[in-house]
Amino acid sequence: MNWSVAIHGGAGAIPETLSAERREACLAALDGTLRSGVQQLSAGASAIDVVEDLVAMLEDEPSFNAGHGAVYTREGTHELEAAIMDGDAGSCGAVTQIMTIRNPIRLARQVMDRSPHVMLCGEGAESFGADIGVEQVDNTYFDTQLRRAELDRALSDPTLAVQEGSTVGAVAMDMQGRCASATSTGGMTGKWCGRIGDSPLIGSGTYADTSCAISCTGHGEAFIRHVVAHEISAMHRHGGVPIDEAAHAVLGKMEDGAGGVILVDASGAHAVINAKGMYRGLAESGGRFETAIWNDQMAEL
Amino acid sequence: MNWSVAIHGGAGAIPETLSAERREACLAALDGTLRSGVQQLSAGASAIDVVEDLVAMLEDEPSFNAGHGAVYTREGTHELEAAIMDGDAGSCGAVTQIMTIRNPIRLARQVMDRSPHVMLCGEGAESFGADIGVEQVDNTYFDTQLRRAELDRALSDPTLAVQEGSTVGAVAMDMQGRCASATSTGGMTGKWCGRIGDSPLIGSGTYADTSCAISCTGHGEAFIRHVVAHEISAMHRHGGVPIDEAAHAVLGKMEDGAGGVILVDASGAHAVINAKGMYRGLAESGGRFETAIWNDQMAEL
Repeated sequence: MNWSVAIHGGAGAIPETLSAERREACLAALDGTLRSGVQQLSAGASAIDVVEDLVAMLEDEPSFNAGHGAVYTREGTHELEAAIMDGDAGSCGAVTQIMTIRNPIRLARQVMDRSPHVMLCGEGAESFGADIGVEQVDNTYFDTQLRRAELDRALSDPTLAVQEGSTVGAVAMDMQGRCASATSTGGMTGKWCGRIGDSPLIGSGTYADTSCAISCTGHGEAFIRHVVAHEISAMHRHGGVPIDEAAHAVLGKMEDGAGGVILVDASGAHAVINAKGMYRGLAESGGRFETAIWNDQMAEL
Repeated sequence: MNWSVAIHGGAGAIPETLSAERREACLAALDGTLRSGVQQLSAGASAIDVVEDLVAMLEDEPSFNAGHGAVYTREGTHELEAAIMDGDAGSCGAVTQIMTIRNPIRLARQVMDRSPHVMLCGEGAESFGADIGVEQVDNTYFDTQLRRAELDRALSDPTLAVQEGSTVGAVAMDMQGRCASATSTGGMTGKWCGRIGDSPLIGSGTYADTSCAISCTGHGEAFIRHVVAHEISAMHRHGGVPIDEAAHAVLGKMEDGAGGVILVDASGAHAVINAKGMYRGLAESGGRFETAIWNDQMAEL
């Protein structure tokens, strides 16, 4: 029985001068997370449970811009957002403006499973999380020196005032052919308070249906304008285009922002990028297991 | 030079016992708003300016659930949301959790035109609005006895605790063939604080591209799951299906919620409904001018 999984830790202009220490930390985090996905899927876990778990692991990982290690708003706070979608059930949950929930993706899952709504915001979302016992933390839990330094640089140079953000995400197809997608982010360094990006928007940054699952990362505003995740699925479903070719076509015509997507469908796991690089990992039941950072590091790109 | 325009004031289980007074008030509001659209478009106005203006008029109209006359959250407050998209430019703006801006659609337009972001929420959005001089009001400005009575009924009967909401919207194609869409809502009566519906989500409740514009109303959670507005456009673009047939197909397969959509493209203005009725009006440069409430009142339905 076939399964496939892909994860990402953000895309963008990742400099080739990235320190060896940081490169190793990122690759180790991708490796450990992907191994967990392989273990769960090969043991028969459902795609929706796997993507939630993998994104929660990436949220806990300080190397990536989600959960602990999230970037700062221009006010020096953290406002997190996440979405999850079960393509088989056609159900989804999303949260935004989260300041005190350790793992926003777990709250998004609860919104999907236990609320009458699809998307909850700010205090309403956090109060729901508190009621059902989702783990709470102080906003300072998300602080890291690396992200603080990025904010300080951005605020000192107005041309850097809003930086392209990154994101974490996971997509999986399980042994029963069910697809699911999950995405979580701290947004963009120096973003305005109250800014909502593509990650929590079903169809833009996160989407799954009965045949595929997609998670995006990159310049959120551009991904919203192009409704990227759903447009890839739609080209595939209505235009008969293979999913990875559809992703190349959609990202290829975006002139207003760069980033990348991970995808799974019956053909396996794919990563497609129109930026310099994307922290990513892909695995399939046939034995494929790869992690990479820059754009030319994986054969299929 | 051809143009077309459509407006809606919400879809749902509109009872045939609707009082004559309320029916007349709704039809008069639709009539006046649609006439304004006809006047503007025939004078050469741009689609994006027209949809903003028409939705602002519908927001000011107490008969409809947006702006003054918006429904109440379960806490007895109003949380408004809106989105606008210029299909020709591929640009868009959206706001949610708005409590003190008289016309949320005008704030959404400013987010599109004057912020680096696409979507802003709550205090961040309102503080941007205050900075640029968008008209502010107290949250009680949105109060009406009709909506208060609806909340009281909903809270007294748990089976009614979250009511299907309605929405206002406008779509237009101007003389130059440019399409635009705008949608604004108070959400659902008794909704949880922090709930975000489909109206402000680009691709779900509001969408426009170079060939068409779409605005939705109905059970928001279902419209988000199906990414309705973008799915209609995608079936049209990738599957070659006429836009009104695409709308029938997408609404026809929704088993999880009812509502309606208004659409414009080169073929004219359309309204498609999978609920009992939708407050609506359609006009085209050829002289067509129609307003209606229930499902069987217009020939093309």
